[in-house]
Amino acid sequence: MTPTIKLNTGYDMPIVGFGLWKVNNDTCADQVYEAIKAGYRLFDGACGKQLSHPLSFLSLERKENLTSSPNFTDYGNEVEAGQGVARAIKEGIVKREELFIVSKLWNSFHDGERVEPICRKQLADWGVDYFDLYIVHFPVALKYVDPAVRYPPGWSYADDDKIVHSTASIQETWSAMETLVDQKLARSIGVSNFSAQLLMDLLRYARVRPATLQIEHHPYLTQPRLVKYATQHGLAVTAYSSFGPLSFLELQVPNAENCPPLFEHDVVKAVAEKHGKTPAQVLLRWATQRGIAVIPKSNNPTRLAQNLDVVGFELEQAEIDSISALDRGLRFNDPVGYGMDVPIF
Amino acid sequence: MTPTIKLNTGYDMPIVGFGLWKVNNDTCADQVYEAIKAGYRLFDGACGKQLSHPLSFLSLERKENLTSSPNFTDYGNEVEAGQGVARAIKEGIVKREELFIVSKLWNSFHDGERVEPICRKQLADWGVDYFDLYIVHFPVALKYVDPAVRYPPGWSYADDDKIVHSTASIQETWSAMETLVDQKLARSIGVSNFSAQLLMDLLRYARVRPATLQIEHHPYLTQPRLVKYATQHGLAVTAYSSFGPLSFLELQVPNAENCPPLFEHDVVKAVAEKHGKTPAQVLLRWATQRGIAVIPKSNNPTRLAQNLDVVGFELEQAEIDSISALDRGLRFNDPVGYGMDVPIF
Repeated sequence: MTPTIKLNTGYDMPIVGFGLWKVNNDTCADQVYEAIKAGYRLFDGACGKQLSHPLSFLSLERKENLTSSPNFTDYGNEVEAGQGVARAIKEGIVKREELFIVSKLWNSFHDGERVEPICRKQLADWGVDYFDLYIVHFPVALKYVDPAVRYPPGWSYADDDKIVHSTASIQETWSAMETLVDQKLARSIGVSNFSAQLLMDLLRYARVRPATLQIEHHPYLTQPRLVKYATQHGLAVTAYSSFGPLSFLELQVPNAENCPPLFEHDVVKAVAEKHGKTPAQVLLRWATQRGIAVIPKSNNPTRLAQNLDVVGFELEQAEIDSISALDRGLRFNDPVGYGMDVPIF
Repeated sequence: MTPTIKLNTGYDMPIVGFGLWKVNNDTCADQVYEAIKAGYRLFDGACGKQLSHPLSFLSLERKENLTSSPNFTDYGNEVEAGQGVARAIKEGIVKREELFIVSKLWNSFHDGERVEPICRKQLADWGVDYFDLYIVHFPVALKYVDPAVRYPPGWSYADDDKIVHSTASIQETWSAMETLVDQKLARSIGVSNFSAQLLMDLLRYARVRPATLQIEHHPYLTQPRLVKYATQHGLAVTAYSSFGPLSFLELQVPNAENCPPLFEHDVVKAVAEKHGKTPAQVLLRWATQRGIAVIPKSNNPTRLAQNLDVVGFELEQAEIDSISALDRGLRFNDPVGYGMDVPIF
């Protein structure tokens, strides 16, 4: 059994889960099903797409110099994930209440009246009647896009790549998020990609406090103040992109391409060898041992099991510190970095 | 005449002003008077104090190792500044409408119902009936302290140095700021020390848009994305601490003490020598030439005149770029840096 974190809502959240970002549609159902068989209980999905189409995140200069076309799925796989869940439940491998299903409110649905309908659509996509956790994906409010017209909508309002903002405040959005809890569509609600000032403001007016903060967190971007602040205020922190630049290589994000891979970093490798574990396991344990949840993904059965088995060993404090010392403030999941003129960081 | 920036309210703000931070009470009236004679029209004041008492900003360890006691005034000089203004007006040197008087809403007065009374008190201290610009000093809401009990209140609620927060949201505070404009107590309103996410949120609900963003801005902390975002959205940017670590040395802020002074930096010195100007003038011109207002202070008549004379020469773009390239993300005015557990940055 994966250890859990007790949320401020009283529910238990597994400290290791399976992240659905960039899991391809054609394999997603099988991967979720296999992950459940391997012991995964938390699945972290989202409406997506973060990127409106495969090349939109690249600057013009980058597009012109591109030698190969990036090829990936950026979420947009909740239907398939739900199929994997349904199969596992049908076969008696797991019960719904043993799962912890996470989804996210996309930027285009921040207007108060859009929150409940899109949440219901995402629940229908998953084939479940509640989310264990529903998260505001970005502190960015974009103009509503009708799902009948384009879904997932991505960053742009229309096909011309133009970003059109909404005037929905975070308080308006959060107030609508709170009604999801009232209506039992979400057991807990949270935020992602919020920086400290905005999170502080949210905590001033929240009737239902956020249960979690999901942020980019790896040795190259440790954000210790934000982690400490969130934890002190009762939010569980979930790390995404635990392996640093790795997930961003296929997106051809320039600072990821120019950054030494964490799996090959001497400090990480040395700790891994000492414990007889993989660098991936060390990176995950570096987070979980500090109480931070992780959501790796893999489509390799061995690594799937390894990633889940991260609590079977303990790092020494000096090892944790040596990994934390790799911090260089390197952020990869930055809208500006993939060509969106939305400087939230 | 100092050039001005046209604010989004239609008023003109001088691009160079006189900052009252750390101007001593006993010399403040004279300094303001002399500055007006020297041609200054903008005065940037605040309730203060940023620091609740002279040592409160130091960590315990720093206090124990302290060899000399810091000695400075941290604002708390609006009465004296007003006396200097009154004398200059009385002597016919300047008219009220030729001045641009800036003050700030301190953290302890964020509760909606506290905004107007404290603004009126500050107006009374200055002896004027409107501010040209009134600014939310920090995105931090602290519990109200009655001015009759302690003024300026500083960061702590009582004498035990304990920080007690208020639940007033930025929207609540901003809404009260807007009524100051309605009542003609402030011609323009603005914010200070806001990061991008919170500023973005404010712009979603603001009925009266902020006219200015005042931020720490010097070659060691250039914040280009925030400056660009604010400018794109019609806010004038005012730089404080244009000389970088200099203002923080007497506060014994550790990262200022360990940082090479900008006045002695080779890049800055070389540009200064080429133009026959002082390093201070180059640092101010580096900002004003990019449309960023500055608020230096000096009690030396020569430097007072030099600081005002920053638009009499033009830097080459390559010179501006070489100075901007000194950026190292070094922030000196950080509450955490002076011992407050308020991680806004």
